[in-house]
Amino acid sequence: MSDSTTQVKADLDRLIPLLDAALLEPFRHGEAQRLGEAMRYSLEAGGKRVRPALCLLASEAVGGTAAMALPGALALEYIHTYSLIHDDLPAMDDDDLRRGRPTNHKVFGEGHAILAGDGLLTEAFGVLARSGLAPDRCVEGLALLAEGAGWRGMAGGQALDLEGETRSAYDLAHLQLIHRLKTGALLRTSLEMGAVLGGASPSERASLRAYGEAIGLAFQIQDDILDATATDAELGKRAGKDAGRGKITYPSLLGLEGARKALSEATETALCHLASLPNRNSLAAWARYLAQRAT
Amino acid sequence: MSDSTTQVKADLDRLIPLLDAALLEPFRHGEAQRLGEAMRYSLEAGGKRVRPALCLLASEAVGGTAAMALPGALALEYIHTYSLIHDDLPAMDDDDLRRGRPTNHKVFGEGHAILAGDGLLTEAFGVLARSGLAPDRCVEGLALLAEGAGWRGMAGGQALDLEGETRSAYDLAHLQLIHRLKTGALLRTSLEMGAVLGGASPSERASLRAYGEAIGLAFQIQDDILDATATDAELGKRAGKDAGRGKITYPSLLGLEGARKALSEATETALCHLASLPNRNSLAAWARYLAQRAT
Repeated sequence: MSDSTTQVKADLDRLIPLLDAALLEPFRHGEAQRLGEAMRYSLEAGGKRVRPALCLLASEAVGGTAAMALPGALALEYIHTYSLIHDDLPAMDDDDLRRGRPTNHKVFGEGHAILAGDGLLTEAFGVLARSGLAPDRCVEGLALLAEGAGWRGMAGGQALDLEGETRSAYDLAHLQLIHRLKTGALLRTSLEMGAVLGGASPSERASLRAYGEAIGLAFQIQDDILDATATDAELGKRAGKDAGRGKITYPSLLGLEGARKALSEATETALCHLASLPNRNSLAAWARYLAQRAT
Repeated sequence: MSDSTTQVKADLDRLIPLLDAALLEPFRHGEAQRLGEAMRYSLEAGGKRVRPALCLLASEAVGGTAAMALPGALALEYIHTYSLIHDDLPAMDDDDLRRGRPTNHKVFGEGHAILAGDGLLTEAFGVLARSGLAPDRCVEGLALLAEGAGWRGMAGGQALDLEGETRSAYDLAHLQLIHRLKTGALLRTSLEMGAVLGGASPSERASLRAYGEAIGLAFQIQDDILDATATDAELGKRAGKDAGRGKITYPSLLGLEGARKALSEATETALCHLASLPNRNSLAAWARYLAQRAT
């Protein structure tokens, strides 16, 4: 195991229990029980919790605590989970498997899957608004979340991605735009949320935002590389899906070696942006880890 | 024209321009242009703007101004519009017409309609978070919005309503639960949002919340009555749809006269809750108007 993998594993062992203790709480007691069950199903599917972990680490990187950023971390995981549920719908990417289990609409039906996404999206803002954090930081975190998740961020990227499937060809700049919005915006928000809730200075916040943008790019390139090279069992979802439907990917535009070079450059950029932060070891390890991951 | 209709018309003539000047602004400039167009399409469909108007009037009723509550009013209209787009989807109520025009997914496709709803839902929180209102009031408004729109409110009501279509029979209590969540929660939130942003005292806030619950009930009963008695052209959507698919409604449970009696009782309850407010005339007119409306 590389040093960075060891560091990431140690961070996750420390942070995931914090998250897991609070993650399902808002979805336990309500009158719409089947909808509650649908939301818990996707939250429990056990993703890698990359976004909330990065949010908590960003708070620590600027001298805050994980606890200070916990409501933001929960909000990010709710947003991420909603986006997976909606992206898997037949009208979008039409996936039957997610994290090795049937997708939400396969279990609960399309209507409930749409509403489960809506409920998670709404609760992301709810958990932050009810957090009892200092109101000015809380409002700033809520504004960041709306920016990163909304039509100028993640949802907009998904729309452009959908349109791309019927577009005859597009170039690297357009591919980068899509990923900057679809995947990058929420990763960037994860870091900036942690910075804001952890009490970052303006320059620390800007550094973490730039780090988030760079690892967002690296994350997407590695996703495309994995889609082109891994098997279904390794990924827990259908491999070769994007290439199979003629979707443009980094490997299809740059070749596999070109994609690997772009991945390495994005990782280096991410590391540079950490240089001025007081506690940068964990985030540096994460940047290396995300570029090496096999699933 | 009755006195209450005259009053409502005067309020709308005064308040709608405030709303309309700001309503589309967050959806004009972005890279996902077709998604922006889809969101503007549904916002421009020209609904009755009941929820934002009630929010602004609630602020005035407790001595605040309409301008103080404007970000909350916009947020409520974005939430309401998102809910219409998602409810109209084939997996939900499967409607082709809304406000006399083709529904969002008929024009933009299901994928974009889902994302247009997601984008509007997200922006509802964004417009409030970016409003520059005093952070403590802003956070309180955001928490209210999440409560009213989420799975313990509107989205939960829609889930129960969907489940009801496959349920063999249910009683008045269950019908009331569905409507209290599906329609009532957001109307109640509209009033409470205006109260909070307008600087209400705790007892004024409680009165407006109770008024909101009562007119929410009245609104739904009248909706069911109209569905049972009006024509397509009058409603701008398919009439008799609910009865036609065997859905339980107030007229089907109580008979048309029984439903009209329940409507009148709910309206009286609403009026009682206004008794202690300084500026109650407009909201009193609205309660009477909503019970008389023909579309």
